Formats: sequence, structure tokens, C-alpha cells
Amino acid sequence: MTIPRLTVITLGVKDLAQATRFYQAIFGISPNSGYEGVSFFELPGVWLTLYPVDKLAEDISPQLSPDRRGFSGITLAYNARSKDEIMAIFEEVKTAGASIIKPPQETFWGGFSGYFADLDGYHWEVAWGPMFDFAPDGSLRFKE
Amino acid sequence: MTIPRLTVITLGVKDLAQATRFYQAIFGISPNSGYEGVSFFELPGVWLTLYPVDKLAEDISPQLSPDRRGFSGITLAYNARSKDEIMAIFEEVKTAGASIIKPPQETFWGGFSGYFADLDGYHWEVAWGPMFDFAPDGSLRFKE
Repeated sequence: MTIPRLTVITLGVKDLAQATRFYQAIFGISPNSGYEGVSFFELPGVWLTLYPVDKLAEDISPQLSPDRRGFSGITLAYNARSKDEIMAIFEEVKTAGASIIKPPQETFWGGFSGYFADLDGYHWEVAWGPMFDFAPDGSLRFKE
Repeated sequence: MTIPRLTVITLGVKDLAQATRFYQAIFGISPNSGYEGVSFFELPGVWLTLYPVDKLAEDISPQLSPDRRGFSGITLAYNARSKDEIMAIFEEVKTAGASIIKPPQETFWGGFSGYFADLDGYHWEVAWGPMFDFAPDGSLRFKE
């Protein structure tokens, strides 16, 4: 039995209320109101969930320290339709309190992309590339 | 302009060939064959991409060390249809070389879930819960 897809990405956060406000601003939606102590953002394709980082570590294993140092090793990305859309998103996330790590710029692979970090230091890429297209449901696909 | 969804999750990996073989086994699909040096697994909803962790850190910022210590702070999850599906998936990922961190078990929130770690130590949860349902496209939703 294989894993056919991802359903949820969970970010362990230091301040749940603050992180929830941040993602409310950048997604433009509120988390599901039926659950306390956890914020489920029901995005199309895959949910983004926020949960206190100490509780997340504890849920995985009592041996796991919630101490995060250095690079998470993971990036989350949104592929945009245009460079203009990327610039507009960077304005929005900056206003919401994100740190701009790499301002949007031309990339070595022929695209246009930038990175920001959320309040807990998780890295997001917002990118456009000539090889990318979108399925009718909005998910990513390669141009044929 | 807000971010309407996620399109890609990228994991920074130490050994791209080895990590690609691992995810080929647990997803049951091959990455897109048109790109070298990066593995795009075109899963429904959101892609999972593998890229060397040093190059990923460098792409974000020259100031970012690719050194990963402790907990990434992020979990990836697949919500299953049944406890049996979870048990079968855990057999499969164990065979593929995953470390079983928390064997599937009843949870405090009324569900059933376990965690495994991939070859680079990234944590995956495979979970079933009575409050979860699936949209026709296979993405997660709450029961009404």
C-alpha cells in the first residue's frame, strides 16, 4: 500500500495566535472555527495546519526536542501565474510581518522567484516559471 | 494579493538518488523524467520535490547554513481511509527504509495515527480520524 498524496502540512509554531493571524492575512481565509489549540487552514489541494511546536514534537516522540536550530530543510511554495502576481504577494506578506529573505528576481533556471520567512522562520518560495502550467483545479503541472 | 494554495513542498536531501528511490517506493510513482538534479513527484493536490539540501539553502540565501540540527518543526501528513490502510502503509514504508518513530496507535483526539521518518529525518504522519472526510478529488475535508 503506497501513499497516494499529501493531505496536510503542519508547521510547529511558537505563538499559535500570532502565527494564525499571520496566515489569515496571507491566505485571506480563516482557519476552521471548530477546533481550539490548532489552526486548520483548509486550502485547496493540501491543508496547512498550525500547532504549537512543543506539542507537535511531543506528539511525534518524547525523545524529540522541540528545539529548532538552523535550517528546517523544507520549503513551501506557491507557483504564481505571473511576475506581477509575485510582486503583489511580496507586498502583502511584508505587510503581514514576513521577512523578505530573497527579493523576487530572475533565476538560473529561467524563472522568477523570491523567498520569504514566516514568523517562525519557515521558508516560502513564490515562483513563476515558463515550464509550469496549471490544471483546471489550480494544481501545478508541467506544460506539455 | 493573497496566496491561494500551496503548489509544491521541497525537501532538502543529503543523497538525491537514494531519497528519490525511497519516495518512488512509498509513492509508487516515478519523478518527472525531464529534469536532472531535482526530483519532482507530481502528486495530486501538491507536488513533493527533492533537491540537495546544500543547494536548497544556497538558493534561499548565501547566509543560510544547510546544517540541519534537531527537529525541522514541520510534519507532512497523509490522512487514510481506515486503520487497515495505515497498517499497510507502515509495512510498506518500513520495507522502503523508513524509521518507525511512533507505531500506529489510538490518539488522544479520537483518531489513529503513527509517525515515520524518511532517510533525511523528515517526519510523516499517517492518520485516520472520525472527523475527516474526503472531497471527490481526494483532498481532505471535515465531515459535515
